Amino acid sequence: MKMWEPTECPGTEELKDRLQTVREKLARQQMLLKEKKLPVLVLMEGWGTAGKGNCIGRVIQNIDPRFFNVESLEKKTEEEKRKPFLYRYFKRLPEAGKFAFFDSGWMDETVQEKLSGDLTEKTYADRIESVRRFERQLTDNGYLVMKFFLHISEKEQEKRMEVLEKKADTSWRISKRDVWQHKHYKKCQEAYLSFMKDTSLSSAPWYMIDAESRKWTELQVLEYLTQGIDIALSNQALAVPLLQNVFPMTQMPKLSEIPLDKELDDNTYKEELDRLQARLRELHNRLYRKKVPVIIAYEGWDAAGKGGNIKRITGALDPRGYEVHPIASPEPHEKARHYLWRFWTRLPKTGHIAIFDRTWYGRVMVERLEGFCSENDWMRAYNEINEFEKELQDWGAVLIKFWVQIDKETQLARFTDRQNTPEKQWKITDEDWRNRDKWDQYETAVNEMIQKTSTVYAPWHILESTDKKYARIKALRIVVEELEKVLGCS
Amino acid sequence: MKMWEPTECPGTEELKDRLQTVREKLARQQMLLKEKKLPVLVLMEGWGTAGKGNCIGRVIQNIDPRFFNVESLEKKTEEEKRKPFLYRYFKRLPEAGKFAFFDSGWMDETVQEKLSGDLTEKTYADRIESVRRFERQLTDNGYLVMKFFLHISEKEQEKRMEVLEKKADTSWRISKRDVWQHKHYKKCQEAYLSFMKDTSLSSAPWYMIDAESRKWTELQVLEYLTQGIDIALSNQALAVPLLQNVFPMTQMPKLSEIPLDKELDDNTYKEELDRLQARLRELHNRLYRKKVPVIIAYEGWDAAGKGGNIKRITGALDPRGYEVHPIASPEPHEKARHYLWRFWTRLPKTGHIAIFDRTWYGRVMVERLEGFCSENDWMRAYNEINEFEKELQDWGAVLIKFWVQIDKETQLARFTDRQNTPEKQWKITDEDWRNRDKWDQYETAVNEMIQKTSTVYAPWHILESTDKKYARIKALRIVVEELEKVLGCS
Repeated sequence: MKMWEPTECPGTEELKDRLQTVREKLARQQMLLKEKKLPVLVLMEGWGTAGKGNCIGRVIQNIDPRFFNVESLEKKTEEEKRKPFLYRYFKRLPEAGKFAFFDSGWMDETVQEKLSGDLTEKTYADRIESVRRFERQLTDNGYLVMKFFLHISEKEQEKRMEVLEKKADTSWRISKRDVWQHKHYKKCQEAYLSFMKDTSLSSAPWYMIDAESRKWTELQVLEYLTQGIDIALSNQALAVPLLQNVFPMTQMPKLSEIPLDKELDDNTYKEELDRLQARLRELHNRLYRKKVPVIIAYEGWDAAGKGGNIKRITGALDPRGYEVHPIASPEPHEKARHYLWRFWTRLPKTGHIAIFDRTWYGRVMVERLEGFCSENDWMRAYNEINEFEKELQDWGAVLIKFWVQIDKETQLARFTDRQNTPEKQWKITDEDWRNRDKWDQYETAVNEMIQKTSTVYAPWHILESTDKKYARIKALRIVVEELEKVLGCS
Repeated sequence: MKMWEPTECPGTEELKDRLQTVREKLARQQMLLKEKKLPVLVLMEGWGTAGKGNCIGRVIQNIDPRFFNVESLEKKTEEEKRKPFLYRYFKRLPEAGKFAFFDSGWMDETVQEKLSGDLTEKTYADRIESVRRFERQLTDNGYLVMKFFLHISEKEQEKRMEVLEKKADTSWRISKRDVWQHKHYKKCQEAYLSFMKDTSLSSAPWYMIDAESRKWTELQVLEYLTQGIDIALSNQALAVPLLQNVFPMTQMPKLSEIPLDKELDDNTYKEELDRLQARLRELHNRLYRKKVPVIIAYEGWDAAGKGGNIKRITGALDPRGYEVHPIASPEPHEKARHYLWRFWTRLPKTGHIAIFDRTWYGRVMVERLEGFCSENDWMRAYNEINEFEKELQDWGAVLIKFWVQIDKETQLARFTDRQNTPEKQWKITDEDWRNRDKWDQYETAVNEMIQKTSTVYAPWHILESTDKKYARIKALRIVVEELEKVLGCS
């Protein structure tokens, strides 16, 4: 079985000429890329000893060190083992205007796990779905994704391994896996082909590279890469089709339909608080032991009482097992990446709890209303967020989303109180008043958000918070219930 | 043997009152701290089951989640094992205006290694020296460092371990180490006391905390902490004494004494380049195998040819085993920390090479001349940098520092060429011209830098670069020689 029909390698003179031309082209393109803020992700996959590292080494000689990173992804760190599958790739995404070269990546990881029997057919199919979504989200969000597979024949691989094995300084380069791969060349070839077939998207196709000679490998990669950059630069302004929702949804009320008359007296509050915090403390120990990751996401009106609510949760937790992530406007290095990057990189380890005080839903609220992203961007975001939360769900995370609800009058009363109390003044800014002026626009956006992102696996929970005590107890109760469900206790 | 004489725990009423007072004080201080940009590092050490986590959990209830991080440092990650001892602590330093709580840290690590026999007397003494320097550098650079040791008696420890052991959800909290520690309580106590004696600096003293009851523990820690913050806030404007140099130095010439007539013809250049790159390629394999970390630092005049010089080094390297770090002006999150933070966090793993295109010496060049730090800051920096490089040396790193030297006329010629060549224009900015106007001031600063930081273990190497070919070959030769020395080959 042949993998594909390679183009013939040109003669020495032509090779030299074309190499020089394309190297100069890439050197010029790097400045354009920087200027136009195009991020380029190059995924270099291929057979063991095919020369992935060598090829990357040659390509980057044409790029200023300020504009690229090389990421070696062969081995997972302990931390990465305790994160979702896509985490380590998301974490290493290039900034706008820069290159990232991945020395093997999600293909290698997936095919390896499939061959070693760690993935069932079902989990393999899920994985393929994750990869397709990941790549589509990248290209939809303006990334150029170039995927190369360096191919060598079984015979050539054998020859190379023999050369490496001879010297102490190079023999470590042959891993046990390379040996295994070579022994099962045919089987591996099938797995590679099937993966490539399943993940060949028109926005991020696979390029097969004949890797029998080094210069010829470099030439093919450089020519495809520079072509890809040309095309991506000319397509930058294009909008992206909106996808239909494919996830099962939960019915949710509109904000205006939510009664806000719920209250709790002081005694009941104290009793319930003690009881639920004690229970949560136990559950925290248990989820640590069972290595369940938990994500609690808070959104809500300014002055709705998010901070105090979060404090009643964390008051029951061991500080070694949770983190609160207050989300402000993104820093420059965050803005330069996929908008979900700063949330992917803040995900908890298994067994830990991450609490987000404001979240990725900023995309469809403040970013939408303040014009920080295009209409196409935020309209696409509902689906992108549902996909993100699906990844978390597939990973085994407990995801709890709270909308903390108050009415406009309550907000005014609390703003005024903050303004008039010296110790609370830092909590109120001009921006809060400006946001208040846009209450109605926000209400429209929030309603749309809740309708479109209350999937069955990650529905919104409304916390009626005109009485903060009521909202705190409700939040604690929901957290306790959700944890009990997953930890299998009543 | 008693560790120290604890103060008596106050009665219930007094305890309650004082707790409330000090909690409110801390809540107020957090805003002041933010405003005055004071960073606070709280190191929480103590016996197993003394309640370090619990105590941190109580303290942070008084602080807004935006203003603190809790860092659990018990276990080293694989990455941290391949970095110098102080790396994981430096990496987690708080930003200006924020708290970081370390749940055990450099004391625990050191004492543990001492007790398990991993440190000889000599390496233990070096470690103590590192810790003292680390803490002094922090307080000298404006950090408040609060160190607590939570003490419980042998009997109390036994009682607590029995309670934890009974339940499946808490029994995992007792580590093998806790069991060992309890068995060797006396021996551990001696080791703790000796460590604390050796590292009790007046700028960062140890506080012994009677940890037999939780609320009393919290009260003591909060009272010391808030006092410490008061004092640090009132001392912020103070300058710090300059320390005498204690490191052996190498004699170095002044820049004006360096002859710049060295040249290389094209043929010799090509031959030597091929030969040295081939050799470097071999050595790169070997240092990867032997896990030697390598740091190559480049400083020099604008247009001296640093970029091209670096390229001749990297051209011989496998991209999976090196990284180039181009150093520009610091980002906000970098500026908010110790000025060496962004270099500590960019150190290579063992077996890897990190190349710095501009370095930590910015402190005594651009930051000095542009007034980005105070005079006291940059005058102190020579010693701080020598200490930093001593850490790298003790770790086993090969550190090579290059000053790329040209004269003023050569710079003008290269600037003009860049200005007149379209593909090179991005390389020249107004700032380059402004820096050129300050040539003489820079020369004074560079001379002082080279004199004061050419330690025997990390001397500067001058690369005469009016002929770039000469400089490249000289750099390659020095790198090859230094690696050969360490790798023990000729």
